Amino acid sequence: MKKSLGPKPIAYPAPVFVIGTYDFEDKPNIMTVAWAGICCSRPPCMAVSIREATYSYGNINRTKAFTVNIPSSSQVKEADYAGTVSGKNIDKFEAAGLTPVRSEIVNAPYVGEFPLVLECECTHSLIVGLHTLFVGEIKDVKADESILDQGKIDLAKLSPLVFAPELRQYFEVGRFVGKAFSIGKSL
Amino acid sequence: MKKSLGPKPIAYPAPVFVIGTYDFEDKPNIMTVAWAGICCSRPPCMAVSIREATYSYGNINRTKAFTVNIPSSSQVKEADYAGTVSGKNIDKFEAAGLTPVRSEIVNAPYVGEFPLVLECECTHSLIVGLHTLFVGEIKDVKADESILDQGKIDLAKLSPLVFAPELRQYFEVGRFVGKAFSIGKSL
Repeated sequence: MKKSLGPKPIAYPAPVFVIGTYDFEDKPNIMTVAWAGICCSRPPCMAVSIREATYSYGNINRTKAFTVNIPSSSQVKEADYAGTVSGKNIDKFEAAGLTPVRSEIVNAPYVGEFPLVLECECTHSLIVGLHTLFVGEIKDVKADESILDQGKIDLAKLSPLVFAPELRQYFEVGRFVGKAFSIGKSL
Repeated sequence: MKKSLGPKPIAYPAPVFVIGTYDFEDKPNIMTVAWAGICCSRPPCMAVSIREATYSYGNINRTKAFTVNIPSSSQVKEADYAGTVSGKNIDKFEAAGLTPVRSEIVNAPYVGEFPLVLECECTHSLIVGLHTLFVGEIKDVKADESILDQGKIDLAKLSPLVFAPELRQYFEVGRFVGKAFSIGKSL
C-alpha cells in the first residue's frame, strides 16, 4: 500500500550542476542547479530549469549560452556556495576561489577547477511555472585528463555529487550494480 | 588542461525512471528513461524526453498523462528490461512480473512493486531533436511506507539507481557528503 505525499518536486537522483554565464558587463557568474539533465541525444542537448528571479536567468536570455560544470564530490563546498548567494552583487568565482575560463565555443565561462564541462548554446526556452526550462545544445564536452580512462569518463575518478531534494542532502555515487541494456535481458 | 571529447550527451548523475502509460486499447506500458528530471518547483513538474519512434511517445500524446516510477537498486533487472524492448508487441508489465495499478488521479498506470511513484499530467511538449521533451505536472507523489522515515523519503531505504551514460552502467547512491544550502556557507 502506497502512501500519498501530495504534489512535490521529489525524484532521485537529482544532479548537482554549476551553470556558468556572463552578465551584461561580461562578468562571469555561476549558479548551482538540480533541476536539470540531458534532454536529447541528437543533437546532444541539456535542459536546465532556472527561476526568473535569478541573475543567471537574465544572463542566459541575453547571451543565449551557458556552461554546465560538474564538480567532484571533493568540491562540494564550492558547488553548494554557488547555490546560496546571488551573483548580482558578488563575484562568486572569486569568493569561491574558482577560475573563470572563457569558452572558445559559446559565449559563457566555465569553471577551470571542475573536472567536467559542457559548453551549451541555448536553443529553446519554455516557461513551466516558477522555473523556466532552457534547452542548450551541447557544442563540446571537456574533461580533465585525470578523470579519463582510455578516453572515456571514469565515474569513480569524476565522483559526481547526487542531490536528494526533500532532505536537501548531497551524496556520492556508490557501488556498481550492473550493465545497462544487458542486466535485464535474463527476464 | 582539459581535453575536448566533442559534442556528446554526457552528464552525471543521470536517473533511471520507468515511465508508465496506457496505449490506445488501455493496455498499460512501461519504458525506462534516463533523459529526465524535475524541471519546476511550483507547480512541481517533471521533464521526460522520449524518442518519437517509441510506443510511449504515442501513448503520452494521446492520454496527456504518464507516471514516473522509481525502482530500487534491487529491481535493476526489471528497470533495465523495460528499456530494451518495445511495448508495441509485448506486455512488458507481464514479462517483467510487475503489476500495473490504475492511477486514480491521472490517466496512466503505475508500477505496484516500485517504491516511489509520481503521477503526472502532461502540460507541455517540446520537440528538441531526436527526442521530444514532455513536461508533466506532478499531481501526487506516492511512496511505499517501507522507504519513509517520519513521513520523508529515506534515500538509503529507497536506494535509487544512478545511470552513467557513456559507459552505460548502473550504480547505487553512496556515501553522505553534506547538507545542501549549508556546507558551502564556510566559504
